[in-house]
This record gives sequence, C-alpha cells and structure tokens, in this order.
Amino acid sequence: MLKKNVINFIGCDAEYEEAKVVLYGAPFDSTTSYRPGTRFAGQAIRNESYGLETYSPYQDKDLRDCHVFDSGDLELAIGDSEKVLAAIEERAGEILKDGKLPFLIGGEHLVTLGSIRAVAGQYPDLHIIHLDAHTDLREDYLGVKLSHACVIRRCWELLGDGRIHQFGIRSGEKEEFSWAAEGHTNLHPFDLEGLEETIENLKGKPVYFTVDLDVLDPSVFPGTGTPEPGGVDYMTLQRAVTAVCSNVNLVGCDVNELCPPYDASGVSTAVACKIIREMLLAIGR
Amino acid sequence: MLKKNVINFIGCDAEYEEAKVVLYGAPFDSTTSYRPGTRFAGQAIRNESYGLETYSPYQDKDLRDCHVFDSGDLELAIGDSEKVLAAIEERAGEILKDGKLPFLIGGEHLVTLGSIRAVAGQYPDLHIIHLDAHTDLREDYLGVKLSHACVIRRCWELLGDGRIHQFGIRSGEKEEFSWAAEGHTNLHPFDLEGLEETIENLKGKPVYFTVDLDVLDPSVFPGTGTPEPGGVDYMTLQRAVTAVCSNVNLVGCDVNELCPPYDASGVSTAVACKIIREMLLAIGR
Amino acid sequence: MLKKNVINFIGCDAEYEEAKVVLYGAPFDSTTSYRPGTRFAGQAIRNESYGLETYSPYQDKDLRDCHVFDSGDLELAIGDSEKVLAAIEERAGEILKDGKLPFLIGGEHLVTLGSIRAVAGQYPDLHIIHLDAHTDLREDYLGVKLSHACVIRRCWELLGDGRIHQFGIRSGEKEEFSWAAEGHTNLHPFDLEGLEETIENLKGKPVYFTVDLDVLDPSVFPGTGTPEPGGVDYMTLQRAVTAVCSNVNLVGCDVNELCPPYDASGVSTAVACKIIREMLLAIGR
Amino acid sequence: MLKKNVINFIGCDAEYEEAKVVLYGAPFDSTTSYRPGTRFAGQAIRNESYGLETYSPYQDKDLRDCHVFDSGDLELAIGDSEKVLAAIEERAGEILKDGKLPFLIGGEHLVTLGSIRAVAGQYPDLHIIHLDAHTDLREDYLGVKLSHACVIRRCWELLGDGRIHQFGIRSGEKEEFSWAAEGHTNLHPFDLEGLEETIENLKGKPVYFTVDLDVLDPSVFPGTGTPEPGGVDYMTLQRAVTAVCSNVNLVGCDVNELCPPYDASGVSTAVACKIIREMLLAIGR
Amino acid sequence: MLKKNVINFIGCDAEYEEAKVVLYGAPFDSTTSYRPGTRFAGQAIRNESYGLETYSPYQDKDLRDCHVFDSGDLELAIGDSEKVLAAIEERAGEILKDGKLPFLIGGEHLVTLGSIRAVAGQYPDLHIIHLDAHTDLREDYLGVKLSHACVIRRCWELLGDGRIHQFGIRSGEKEEFSWAAEGHTNLHPFDLEGLEETIENLKGKPVYFTVDLDVLDPSVFPGTGTPEPGGVDYMTLQRAVTAVCSNVNLVGCDVNELCPPYDASGVSTAVACKIIREMLLAIGR
Amino acid sequence: MLKKNVINFIGCDAEYEEAKVVLYGAPFDSTTSYRPGTRFAGQAIRNESYGLETYSPYQDKDLRDCHVFDSGDLELAIGDSEKVLAAIEERAGEILKDGKLPFLIGGEHLVTLGSIRAVAGQYPDLHIIHLDAHTDLREDYLGVKLSHACVIRRCWELLGDGRIHQFGIRSGEKEEFSWAAEGHTNLHPFDLEGLEETIENLKGKPVYFTVDLDVLDPSVFPGTGTPEPGGVDYMTLQRAVTAVCSNVNLVGCDVNELCPPYDASGVSTAVACKIIREMLLAIGR
Repeated sequence: MLKKNVINFIGCDAEYEEAKVVLYGAPFDSTTSYRPGTRFAGQAIRNESYGLETYSPYQDKDLRDCHVFDSGDLELAIGDSEKVLAAIEERAGEILKDGKLPFLIGGEHLVTLGSIRAVAGQYPDLHIIHLDAHTDLREDYLGVKLSHACVIRRCWELLGDGRIHQFGIRSGEKEEFSWAAEGHTNLHPFDLEGLEETIENLKGKPVYFTVDLDVLDPSVFPGTGTPEPGGVDYMTLQRAVTAVCSNVNLVGCDVNELCPPYDASGVSTAVACKIIREMLLAIGR
Repeated sequence: MLKKNVINFIGCDAEYEEAKVVLYGAPFDSTTSYRPGTRFAGQAIRNESYGLETYSPYQDKDLRDCHVFDSGDLELAIGDSEKVLAAIEERAGEILKDGKLPFLIGGEHLVTLGSIRAVAGQYPDLHIIHLDAHTDLREDYLGVKLSHACVIRRCWELLGDGRIHQFGIRSGEKEEFSWAAEGHTNLHPFDLEGLEETIENLKGKPVYFTVDLDVLDPSVFPGTGTPEPGGVDYMTLQRAVTAVCSNVNLVGCDVNELCPPYDASGVSTAVACKIIREMLLAIGR
Repeated sequence: MLKKNVINFIGCDAEYEEAKVVLYGAPFDSTTSYRPGTRFAGQAIRNESYGLETYSPYQDKDLRDCHVFDSGDLELAIGDSEKVLAAIEERAGEILKDGKLPFLIGGEHLVTLGSIRAVAGQYPDLHIIHLDAHTDLREDYLGVKLSHACVIRRCWELLGDGRIHQFGIRSGEKEEFSWAAEGHTNLHPFDLEGLEETIENLKGKPVYFTVDLDVLDPSVFPGTGTPEPGGVDYMTLQRAVTAVCSNVNLVGCDVNELCPPYDASGVSTAVACKIIREMLLAIGR
Repeated sequence: MLKKNVINFIGCDAEYEEAKVVLYGAPFDSTTSYRPGTRFAGQAIRNESYGLETYSPYQDKDLRDCHVFDSGDLELAIGDSEKVLAAIEERAGEILKDGKLPFLIGGEHLVTLGSIRAVAGQYPDLHIIHLDAHTDLREDYLGVKLSHACVIRRCWELLGDGRIHQFGIRSGEKEEFSWAAEGHTNLHPFDLEGLEETIENLKGKPVYFTVDLDVLDPSVFPGTGTPEPGGVDYMTLQRAVTAVCSNVNLVGCDVNELCPPYDASGVSTAVACKIIREMLLAIGR
Repeated sequence: MLKKNVINFIGCDAEYEEAKVVLYGAPFDSTTSYRPGTRFAGQAIRNESYGLETYSPYQDKDLRDCHVFDSGDLELAIGDSEKVLAAIEERAGEILKDGKLPFLIGGEHLVTLGSIRAVAGQYPDLHIIHLDAHTDLREDYLGVKLSHACVIRRCWELLGDGRIHQFGIRSGEKEEFSWAAEGHTNLHPFDLEGLEETIENLKGKPVYFTVDLDVLDPSVFPGTGTPEPGGVDYMTLQRAVTAVCSNVNLVGCDVNELCPPYDASGVSTAVACKIIREMLLAIGR
Repeated sequence: MLKKNVINFIGCDAEYEEAKVVLYGAPFDSTTSYRPGTRFAGQAIRNESYGLETYSPYQDKDLRDCHVFDSGDLELAIGDSEKVLAAIEERAGEILKDGKLPFLIGGEHLVTLGSIRAVAGQYPDLHIIHLDAHTDLREDYLGVKLSHACVIRRCWELLGDGRIHQFGIRSGEKEEFSWAAEGHTNLHPFDLEGLEETIENLKGKPVYFTVDLDVLDPSVFPGTGTPEPGGVDYMTLQRAVTAVCSNVNLVGCDVNELCPPYDASGVSTAVACKIIREMLLAIGR
C-alpha cells in the first residue's frame, strides 16, 4: 500500500510521541509594511532543505540522531491578526503541554507574539534573545498595534523591563532607540557583540530565542521584506545561534522573515535552512 | 526655482479644481489569500504609464484633452482592514462631494468595498458591473469576512438582489455559484457574453464598474495574486471596458489585482495602464 | 497529538484503499536536451494547487467528491535512466495491481516510457493519445536511445503501428514526420483537429493518455524545457483533455514537461494544476 | 587540430562564397526611449536557436538546404548613433555588393536606417513593408532625430511618399497618424489586414521587409523595449512573414526589438528564432 | 482639496527656498558599454527609499532635520550625449547659483561630466574624490569620447593633473593605469586605503565627490552595468562616504551606476538608498 | 569577405598551433542532484567575459600576451554519463598529446573525472588540489556511481591515498568525512587554510587543479546547483587560484558548477569569468 506524501524539514521525521522539538510554521504576512511574501517561507524551507545534508561538520552531529517532529504550516486566517495570533498561541501551547520545545517558522515577525504568549504563560520569568536589523519597538505603526514593526514592544508589555536582549539592531526611529535606552530592553546596536556575555548572564533562566533573519547583511540574505544593508555575515550568525541554542535553557524559539519571492536564486532559503539545522543540532546536544 | 517631483499617470495632470475624474490608489493587500503584492500596483502603474502614448488610435482621443487629476496613493494602515476601508470610503466621498468621478486603483479587490460604501451612500439605486475570474461571493474566508474573496458578497449586503452583474467568472466554490443562481447576482460565467445587453438594460441608472484584471487570461496578465487560466484576451477586455465607460451612467470605478512582483517582464503593468487609459478616454467622451 | 505534514494536490486526500485514481510524481530530467528543471514540477504542482478551487464550474464537479490518492514524488536515481524507468514501472504496476488508475506527473517526457511499460504489460491492445509540440520519434538523440526526444519511438517499439495518435505536433526532424507518415503513428500536425474522431474510433479500447504541456503555446505555458511557438491556447487544451478523459476507456495517463524554474510568474504551474484538476474530474465521472 | 568556436544561428553554416543570404547583427540600443537591452538580441538568438529544429513542417523545408552565412554581430560605437548607422550601412553594402541578401538582426529599430541607406542606394524604387506596434514616424523625439521612435520617418525622407506600407500599428501620437494619412505612408492600423493585397501590388518591385517584433501581443512577446498590448498572435505573424518572404522581390530585411533581459523565460527569444527560421526558409524558396 | 502626488526620496520634503541640498536625477545610460538600465535608478531609489527609516543610528541624525529638496529626474534626450550633458550642467548650475549643493543621482557615470562642468566653472581649484571599480580613464571607447568608460579622463581635461583622487580601482586597461601613474591622477587600487589621508590633505579645498556604486563587491551590489568582483563591503563604503561628506568642503556630489533591472531582489537599490541617506546626513552636519 | 562568428573567452584568440593552454567546455549536468543548469555555463562564460578587461592589475598581466585557444563546448550525449566522460577524456587527451594544458569549463563536477582519466594516464604520480564546499566522496548516490556527488571518490580510485588535497569542504555525510580522515584524502574543512603549505609540498609534482565554484559563499556566487552558506569570499578564492596556478607544476585544471539560470543578475558568471582570467594569467607566467 502506498504511503501518503509527508513533507518534513530534512531529517525531522521523528514520531510525535518521541520528539523533543516540534517545528510548526505560521504562513502569515498581513502586517508586513514593505514587501509581503513571508507566508511562503515554511513551504520553501521544507522543500529546499533537501539541498542540505543532515550532518553538520561544524558540530559533528546529525539531524537523524535528533528527535524532531515537523507539524507543517498552520492554516491561518489571512487578514485577521488576532485570530492568527490565537492560532499560533494554541499550537505553541499544545506543544509545550506535551513537554516539547516549540520551534516556530515564520512568517513575518509578528508571529513571535503568538508564541511568546504561550511560552510566557508557562515561564513568567522568561527572557528573550532577539536578533534583528530592526528595533520592532514602535508603540504602533500607522495606528496598528499588531504589526511586525511593533512585535517586540508587544512582547515587552508581557514581560516588562530588562527581559529582552536585542542584537544586531541597525534600523528604527530615534524614539525607539531612546525608549530602549531608558532601560526597557538591552539593545546592542549594529552587530552581535555582547551576546556571549548575555548568554552567560542568562544561565539557568528560561530563554526564548527569536531570530529575524534580516539581521544578516542583504548580500547574504536578500530574500526578506525589509532588507537593511550593514548586517552580519553568515558565519557570524551561525556561530551565534549555535552558541545560544547550546548554552541557554531554551524553552521556545523562532526563525522568521524569510520572503522567498524576493530571492529567485534560492540562496536566502538555503541560508534559512542551514541556520535552522544548526539550531536544531545545538538544541539536541 | 525648481519644481517638486510630481508623478502622475501619463497625461493626468489636470488641476484638481478643473478635473472631472480623480485617480486615487489603495496600496493594500493584507487579505490576499494566495500571493500578496498588489500594494505596489499604483506606483508601478504611474511609473510604467510613460511607456504608453496619451493618444489612443482606437478611440481617436487623447488624455491631454481629458481632465483627470491623480491624487496618488493613500497611506493605509497595513494590517487593519476596517481602518483601510474607512480611509478609502473617506477619499471616495470627498471626490464625490466635489462632483468628480472617483477612479480607484487597487490593491486587492477588497478595496472596492470602501469605494462602494461611499458611492452607494450617494446613489442608493446603484448597480455594479463586475469583471473577474472569481465569484468573490463567499460569506467568509477561513472565518474572515473582510476578505478579497468575499468582497462582492459584502457589496451585495449593501445593495441587495439583482444589482450586481458579474462577467468572466470561472472560479469559485459550488456554493457561491448556487447562491448567485438564486437570484442574488446576475452571474455570467467564463466570458463577457451578455455585457452589451446589460449595458443596454442599465441605461440611465447609476453604475459602479469594478474590473478585477484577473478576468484576463494569465498569458496576458500573469502578474496577479491568483492567476486563473481560461480568461479573456486583451482586446476583448479593452472593447468591454470601452463599451461600459462610454455607455453607462458611470458614477465610480476601480481597476484592481495587479501584482507587479509576479511579472518581472512588466507586461501585466503595461496591460493595466492601457486598460486604464482606454477607460479614462471613454469616460471623457 | 499533532499530525504529520501531508502535502497533496488540492482535494486529493482520499485514503489509498478507497482511491480510484493515484497520483505519483517522477522528478526526473536527466535526458532533457535543452533546459532542465522538470524535476521540480511535482512539488510545484502540489504547492501551487492551493491557488485553485476544488470545484469546476466547467464540469460542475468537485474534487472532494472524487477519490484520488496522492502518493507524492518517487525518489529517483538521477543520472541513470534505466533505473529511473524501472522505478516508475514498478510504481505504476503496483497501482494497476490494486485496481486503480495510475496518473503520473513528470518530469520530462521520458518518464512516460516507464508508465507505458507497466500499462502495456496489462493491456496488450493499448492505444496512446499523445498531445505534444514535438514528434518525440527519433531513433536516438546524439547516440542516446533513452531520451525525451525518443520516448514515443520507444513506446512504438512496445505497441507497434497504428496504436499511437499524435496531436498538436509542430516540431521535429523531417525524418520523424516521414517515418510517422509511413503508417507508424497517426500524426496530426499543428493543432488538435481530429481528436474527436479519434476518441470515437477508440471507444471501448484501453487508452493511455500522455499530455506534454508544451503542446500549449509558450504565451500560455512559458515554463517548459523546449518552448515551441505556435501552440494551442488554454481552453482548447482544457476542452481536449476533458473530452479524452470523459469518453475513452482510460487505463493510465500522465502530464509532463512543466519546468517551473523558467516561469517565475508561476502561471505555467497554474495551468498545469488546472489541466490536472479537469482531467481528474473528467476521469471521476 | 581543434577547431575554433563558431556560433551560428542554427543551420546557417554555409561558407560565405556559396551563401545567398547573410545574417548580421547590430547590438545597439542607445536611443531606446523606454527599456534598453536589445543589444543582447543577436547573441541570445544564436544561442537559443538550438532549441529549434532546422526543419519546418509548415513549409516542409530545412535550413540545412538553404545557403545562409552568419557573420555575427558588428562591434558598434555604443553612444554614437551616426557611427553606428555608418557601420551598419557599410556591412549591408558589402553584402549587397557580393550579390547576397542582407538579413539584419537588431538591436533597436533605428538600426533599420543603416540598412535602408545601403539598400535604397542600390534600389532607388525601393518599397518597405513594415510590421510594428508603433508608427515610428516622429520628426524627432525630445529633440533627437536619430531615434528608434523616428526611424520610419527617416526612411521616408530617403524614399518619399507611397513607398512605405505599415501594418499592425496601434500606438503613436495623433500627429503621426495624421501625417501618415496625408499620403506619406500606407498605414494599416491594429492588425495585418491588407497585407496580402500589398504583396500583390508590390509584385516585381524591390522590397525591404522590416519586422519590429513588438507587432506581436506582449503575451506572446514580453521581452521587448516598449510592450504594447493588443497585438497579433504568433501564427498570424508567422503566416505573414512567410507570405512576404515567399512572394515579394525581397532585397533586404531585418528583425528587431527583441530585448532578452525582460523575458527571463526565454520565450520571446524562441519566438524571434522561429520567425527568423521561417523567413529564411521562405526566402530560400 | 486633494494634493498632487509628490514623490521624494524619504525625508527630503523641504521647500526649495529653505533647502541646503538639492537632489536631481539623470536617467541616462546611452553610452553604457555592457548592460544598460541605470536610467531607472532615480525612480527606483525614490520609491524604495520608503523601506528605510529617516533616522540613522550610526550618525544619530534624522533626515527630517536636514533641509533637502528633491527636484526629481530630468527629462533627457536619450541618444544624444551632448544634449544630455548640457541639461545636467544647466540644472547643476541653477542649484549652485541658488547657493545650494547639487546632489546628482545617475544614470551611468558619464552624467558626472555634466555636473563637473558646472561645479568646476564655479570652483576652478576643484578636487574630485572618485570611488569606483573602474579607472574610467580611456581616451575614447570604440571611437566615442563621451562614454562612461572615459568620464574621469574628460574631467581631467577640465581640471588637470593632481586633482583627481581615485579609490577602489580594480579594472581597466594597462594603459589607463600607466597613464594615471604618470601623475595625472592619484589612483589607489583595489580598496579605499589612503582615503583618510586624502581627506586630511584636501581640508579647505572645494571637493566634488563621485561615487560609482560598483566600487562595492557585486555580492553587495549586483544591480549594476559592469559588475566587477573583488570590491569593498557595505560598511566600508558607508564609513567612507560618511567620512568624506562630514570632513571635506563638499561643493557637489553624485551617486551613480545603480541598474535596477539586474537585481530583482531590490537589494542593490536598498544599498543605494542607505548610502544616499548617510551622505545626506553627513552633509547636513 | 566576411568572417565567421567566432566566440572566445575574452582575449583567448590564439591560433591552436601557438597555444599553450586550451579551453574546452563540457555542457553536462545530467547527474546534478539538486538544481540542474550547469550545462549553460560555458556559453554564459564566453558571452559575459566581455564585461571584463583582458588586463589584470592584480598580476599586472594581460590575456592578450598569453597564448590561449578556446575550442568551445563539446557536443555531449545528454543522459549518458559514460559517453560524456569518454568524450571529455578524448578531448583532454588530444590537447595533452599536442603538448598543451587542458583547461576544462564545466558543467557539473562529474566532468572532472573525464579530464582526470586523461591526465592521470599521462602523469601516474598526479596530485589533485580540490576546492569545493562538498566532499564529493560518496561511494554512490542513490545507487549511481557516476554522480557529481561521487566524483572525487572516483578520482581516488584512479590515484589512491594521499594524492587528493581538499579545501573549503563544509558539507557531506558523516561517513565521507570519516573516510577521508582514514587517510584517503587530505581534507581541510571550512576554508582554504593550509593551501600554501600544500603548494609548497607539491613543488615539482604534477598537479591537477579542480575548482568547484561553490567553495565560495552563496552571497558571492548564488548561481550554482547546491548553494552551501558559509563559504569563502571572492578575494580569498582569487588569491588561492593565483597561488596554485603560479606555483605548482600544473598539468590540467577545471572550473565547474556555475549554473547561470539561478542567478539572473549575472554576477555569478562575472565571478567565474574573473577567476578563469586570473588562473589563465597565472598559468601564463
């Protein structure tokens, strides 16, 4: 008897019961302020992951030895941000309830809020490590509060001062930088300097890790909604995500803002895939 | 003294006071169910219109002899459909109040609802002529009522049975076709057959004309969110829009669903531009 | 408990046991003489089918009422044509053995040979209806006999004279046209004229239907390995495949030569999806 | 001993001495008013011609039986129109002097003027059959007289009234249409109607044939500098060029305005190749 | 009353009278030797600048606090280099006359000559800082003296030895490097080493700054006419332009050679926008 | 008399007899496991090389002073790997027999095997320097032994342990890395560290140099079949190939895995061209 056509991220074919990490995708981009299309990221990432090996010579580990379940993309109510966030929160909550780590693939960055709502509910002392080109700290964007440009501000409303550690930030309004500097977030501008120290400081505390891939330079990662020149190179990001995932008490994470239609070469998707593989391998350690 | 950089649709450089027709763009695509990007249509159409002449040998008329004002694109609250519709309604209302014809450039098809709200408020006996590949008659789409897949249903709620005349329809759920067949709309499937007769029947009545450019075959118009093979060819559409705009009592109109990122050849934008030119010339008669 | 990520052609989610038709993909293009990339067709077709509805107003039928199982793409030995054909033959044979109709999604046209080997084994009096721009009748191509340019010649070797009915053919070597004219195949050049009569003549006989989508004009279907201007338009092909699938004793079929990398607009994939939908609906009658 | 890498249009490998027709390319686009890039046409056409067969089932003739020499692209002084025209005129003159037919591959349409200067010098009673979307009859374009938008006007200055027969014209300024209507050219708008009669009337007279490929609808031929919707379909053009090349006393010709960078699918180049093949075969009759 | 559709570079909405810097575009590429299309740069830069913020965390300054007027693109006589240069010179002269700094957005690099003619007229002791991959020092290019490949040589003819300081140069003919080495220009090959010292040396002298963006590595900036691997990275260029614009007596400048059609990802345009923003902010200091 | 259209890599127009180096292309990609299209590399490289200069300021040398013959692309039996390898071996053998250095332009990496067969026959003590992202050491790939994923393993079978020196390797199966570590090859992971020492050690020995361009980071070289993030930057590779070609006893070489269809910007092809130029100049020393 023939089998159904199951499409996973490469090497992530554990049964749900045995899985320690669960991938789930949120194909949503309704609040994207510039170039939409991140909704296609999950699909692209799964399909293109087959250009990668399951083995990483960097970590000398193989995805086939990890236990990752890929639950595919959620079916989301395009155009209604609240419903979308509720669906993400529900999925993340279910994964947490089953004692597994929820690994979200965006979508635009707003999807992180759904995931954080679930995780923060379970871990009130949650910290967030946030890699991004943009502050994402606006109070609202053209009057809209549920926007990818405001997502970290919304997370802050849940967690409070001193919990959010931002790296690579090189774009935002003056007011956002000032607001952060008042002590609301620990904002490290331009590059990933200080990450090692933050990892050290967060030892033992529950950490959510959100990676907006536009922290990379657009030469490395052109396929994103709001490309911002001046970002980090690929190996810098790979080392950073490996360090975070290997060394903190990770309780949830996401990778977001891949916008496949804007990179016909497929290289941005390949970058996203390899970053996800290295994160999964490091988590699995 | 140097002048500011004013960008109009070609030949549409009337002063506002003297204008009979006013273009305005709604760069919105948050509810697009498949491939977003129609937000870039207004900008692309203005820029690429310079590949056209202002003169049409088909109608032997010149845009320079018409009186069209181009007010540019609205600044819209991406991600909040209600706010967006309110802004469109307000703009359309202002144009109507000044005794001019509002000509809306989408954006996704949902933008039509904002315009219809304004126009129907002024013309309670309004009829709509609707060219499209899709029925757009769903009660909701994954629970969302303000969706481009539901826009004609929402218009029907404002106008009631027998007011909406649909042409070219070749895609939808069975329930949508059945619902239309119950007398709610006059749905002409597959092509534009029957349009001449409808124009004849609507003589004297106020008519809103909404053109979803995906009524065209995707070979002619690949740059759209939901391409649906089997549509009409270019000259069929040009003749149809000329006939409508020349012969009905037009009180408002829109052209929508150009999605420039999906046609790098620029041909879809060129098609949109020429359709708009022919409509403007026919209105001007 | 979360479910695995099953990706089907839209509406083709029957269980294997209840299915009457079984889709299977052959991601192979190693013998493509010009522009490779058809290996990505199956994946693209499944992903993009969600831009379509399951309901067809042309046939007033819905895929949700058919019983189609999608077994996904085979894992093929890229670079070894014999192994690939054996794998295709085995899959087709298994589907036939289970009393279901094998529906193959290419890949390049050579994949048809694997399917024909299985089907002809079960139906020795098999006829083939072949839509294509190209003759595909070469004895060999630069010394290679297992080539997409020779596939119908290879099928003829299995079936003999008078069994193959070719339509739409507008490209080939003079020798191929002459060879066909000697009575080996019934070659109808340029368009689909004569198809109705062929359908009539084949009433009751087992028929395999192979659709090389480059029978379409490249304006409709640019995303193919060897575009050949002068083909049929979309509705002509849709009507033809509906007529064949509704009226012959179909025992196997395939749709091939979609090459997604050469059509970034996605329109070629949309065309392939709609043709497949209409075929499935017509088969289901 | 290894041979040099000679790249011809497919099947055009005659020695110069035996050739009856000589291809030469003019990679020039400096006066293009909208989207430049036709300079790459000659190279693209030669490379992509290998996707075609040398045999045409339409004419039952084979390029291998014709005697065509391909002299490649000229090296042109980009940025200096007069020098460029002189180089084209010189090449065309040399071919004519050797008793062969010069077949020019553009480049933008201005290149025709160089060729016409040579041909008209030899045939004072020359007529031109001109297929195009655009009138090309401006006196000047933003003050520039050597512009692709003025090329037919420049030819008229050499030949006078009644010698130029234009077909397919659907774009221009009102003044251009009026000027033509004063008897300067025989302008047939919109399609190729009247071409048969013109061919009949020109029997015996020397004819130059210039084909601006944008006479085609952009759905068929998106890769051009100024796409103009509403053109003829592929087979209409193929039949027209075959009729002209088979039936007039052809003394020179060109095919121009393919702009490969604007059609990544390569289909526009395939169209240009097939039109050239059919012209060469018809000339060879 | 509705307002006209004014399109500026983001944040550059000063009134002309109050402006200190005036942007103007020269959409010209007729002498481009390889891949044309820089004519579309000005338009692309204005449109895409909205993906940027007006605030720069690098300089802690905001464009809304500067006084920049954007006069849009000139309408240029495509195909006639002398007329084009005259128009640029006239515009630059007018801006200078009004006591403002002219900031030119190319187009190909030849446009710099028009601007230099105006500026050198006013500042006879002018120096030029020139960032580029290419020498641009040819006496002529295929016989054409007004070519982008000769532009710095033409500028040298106006200014004489020792006035031109070239950085990043990694491509040219041997003769060009030799000619420079004779003391005609100060050519710094390969990277931007020595720029700090040059800035120091030029203190107090009037400086024109011309930035050919292909000084960047093509990984950072693929969208250009003649990509030359081995260039500088983004931050190196950003730091360099900030240093120049902050520390010299700047009397005119330009940014050129963005060719949007060759980078569909839009990243090259984003790079151009951010470089322009940082230059404007540094000038405004 | 007009000349034939000879297309060479820029500056490589020596007569065969006088040539010291002979370029030949192998347009083959039938075993490509992920994204095919390298067959178009040779053609693209020749055409696009005209965007380069023949002079290199890095080496202060000019291709016009070298003696390189370009024999163009082989005509290969697409779909039959053994025939293809035989044709490559024959061509390489002929060049070697004539006392010249064979310089192969792929195609996928499997083509190296044909070349190595010829070279190893003449130089039994041959060493290979191999730059690549991938190990290419599999015993077979899905049962296929002649695969680009196995090519270095096949070369090892000809040469034995200790002869192959791999650099830049960052992808492969765990088993491949282990197998190399058993002493079969000298595998240097991740970057080009150790290359200088290897060059030193190989002084005097015959060396074949194979450059899989995907050793570069995909930001520099997106146009390849299997992009693998984390590679070296452009100047690192340029310096490496210059060092190898200048300092070893080079008896054959190749550059492979450029896949032009996946980089519409053309930058990957420009990178390939410049690497080839620097290699040719260094060989010519």
